[in-house]
Amino acid sequence: MRVYQPIASDLKAVDARLHRELQSRYEALVPVLRHGTQLGGKRLRPALLLLSGIAAASPKESGSPNSPAPKVTSTEVASPDVASADQPSETKLSEDHIVMATVVEMVHTATLVHDDVLDNADTRRHVATINARWNNDTSILLGDYLFAQSFYLAATLPSTLACRWVGQAAQAVCEGELRQVLGRDWLDIDEETYLDMIRGKTAELTRVSCQLGANLSGADEATVAAFGTYGNDLGIAFQIADDYLDLWGDDSEVGKTLGTDLLQGKITLPLIRLLRHDDAAIASQAYEALQAEPEKRLEKIRPLLAQSDAAEYTRQVADRYRSSAIEAIQNLPASPALQSLINIANFSVDRRF
Amino acid sequence: MRVYQPIASDLKAVDARLHRELQSRYEALVPVLRHGTQLGGKRLRPALLLLSGIAAASPKESGSPNSPAPKVTSTEVASPDVASADQPSETKLSEDHIVMATVVEMVHTATLVHDDVLDNADTRRHVATINARWNNDTSILLGDYLFAQSFYLAATLPSTLACRWVGQAAQAVCEGELRQVLGRDWLDIDEETYLDMIRGKTAELTRVSCQLGANLSGADEATVAAFGTYGNDLGIAFQIADDYLDLWGDDSEVGKTLGTDLLQGKITLPLIRLLRHDDAAIASQAYEALQAEPEKRLEKIRPLLAQSDAAEYTRQVADRYRSSAIEAIQNLPASPALQSLINIANFSVDRRF
Repeated sequence: MRVYQPIASDLKAVDARLHRELQSRYEALVPVLRHGTQLGGKRLRPALLLLSGIAAASPKESGSPNSPAPKVTSTEVASPDVASADQPSETKLSEDHIVMATVVEMVHTATLVHDDVLDNADTRRHVATINARWNNDTSILLGDYLFAQSFYLAATLPSTLACRWVGQAAQAVCEGELRQVLGRDWLDIDEETYLDMIRGKTAELTRVSCQLGANLSGADEATVAAFGTYGNDLGIAFQIADDYLDLWGDDSEVGKTLGTDLLQGKITLPLIRLLRHDDAAIASQAYEALQAEPEKRLEKIRPLLAQSDAAEYTRQVADRYRSSAIEAIQNLPASPALQSLINIANFSVDRRF
Repeated sequence: MRVYQPIASDLKAVDARLHRELQSRYEALVPVLRHGTQLGGKRLRPALLLLSGIAAASPKESGSPNSPAPKVTSTEVASPDVASADQPSETKLSEDHIVMATVVEMVHTATLVHDDVLDNADTRRHVATINARWNNDTSILLGDYLFAQSFYLAATLPSTLACRWVGQAAQAVCEGELRQVLGRDWLDIDEETYLDMIRGKTAELTRVSCQLGANLSGADEATVAAFGTYGNDLGIAFQIADDYLDLWGDDSEVGKTLGTDLLQGKITLPLIRLLRHDDAAIASQAYEALQAEPEKRLEKIRPLLAQSDAAEYTRQVADRYRSSAIEAIQNLPASPALQSLINIANFSVDRRF
């Protein structure tokens, strides 16, 4: 993807590390582990961590007067000219950046593998899911394996900070999803509750990815917090865009069937907006449509959505989070990495897949 | 349970901590989290950690000349007389012992909650499982939540050592279970492979529990390793005794239906022994019986087991691991805690439930 260009070689190092970590001396496990690494796809979280790491390190290069906080990095990469495919090159990233970028991708993959069981999904980004190719038991255990491995890997850094951040983020993801699964009255969820749920489900891990990148580059607290705000708001914007694409995307581009949120009884921002339509008749028809048989919901809800501002409103809210994400970092020293982060924020809302 | 007497108040502190950790500001999650804490039952792993902690600290009390290695403990409990229900008392344990005892119990509970999905189990120790009372989705997410929370909690200690040990143990548990699930030719598994699988599935977490207890008490490396061997061999003995009880236990005492291993196509030591019977006719009938419909396996296999030494042999192997567990620690300075560990090893093999 064009926006990731400044860290192309570092992302390759993350992929190499991911492959190395997910080997097993037990032959039976190898194809399952290998397949698991292919499910992540976009490598968004590693990209966020690496770009934040470079962008946060930039002030030092240009001789910033701010003295950085002590960083938790253990080993700097020796020098760019000895960098192999397995090591970061060109940029000023440390091996710890690569390790933690691998960790956040593994945690994300673990949640995807379990989500596919929850959603009974057969494919993800045109690739067969673990539950489809093997079975649910394998998915549950592979997800657990990835969680455990990622926490172990985070604990190879000298400080416990990375473990704590990643542990908290993983917990927030599960908490958000548990609330969704246990939410009996899903149609009564209001916008505030919804935003709080996606903050846990999606934004915590993007927030921690950005914070870790900056922290490992020795950035001061205020800078780390700025990257945290960027990551949080980007995650929310990204999830709202996902909600939008589930209703108005092009299914061949999105890579999954449209209306799956509806099918699974997941509330999304467009539906929340529709259910609060000024015209009580439309709101009430929407309420009814969403209580119909899962397979019939999409066709029933589409004409109602067309009579509302749900699409426009959803894009507006996504835009608001995109803007606040960019605002959080735009006054930091300019660099290609910072520009990439801004591009990602724009892409997350404007994408068609 | 009588054998845990020396640490009764510390186990209460662990329970209190478990309850405190598993609270949520989201009301919907509270009953699920509360129910989860009731599934552990015996609290074996916290007991092992705490008893190892006291037993390893004993030499200091009696003025041992060995200078202990630097320990990773952060805070000592102020003094026994200020100990509340939430703090360890009477013993020389630190708050970090209580935290890590809570962590190993949470990791264990996470694996149980996921196991109940894999086994499609309705009850565990006479208590309804999460999947029976709620559903599989809730079980998957609760297990993940417990994993994440336990790793976060382990990372509140000053060193990353506890995170690394717990991460590795959790990974070994998943690896062992994955091998079992992916093992297509389960009837061809030999004793060595079987022992390696239960080492991962059961013994890694008991080993790490004992090691952590000793390490947090500042024990030297050799002593930590001795407790590790004890924990490993105890875990294997315990699992083999479980195999025995699944075939020859009293189901009202065991708290689950007999023959569930057979039903689920899990190979156990008695079956491995039976399949290698000197009388080829019996071995071949056993092979056939185990390929019968799951529900019919128990009645078909019982008369064959009666014609073999499988029961006796299984007890012998369990006894061997019980003995080597005790041997690993019996020359350490005598204390009520050490005696309790020896009692647990004996109990793990002699128990009827």
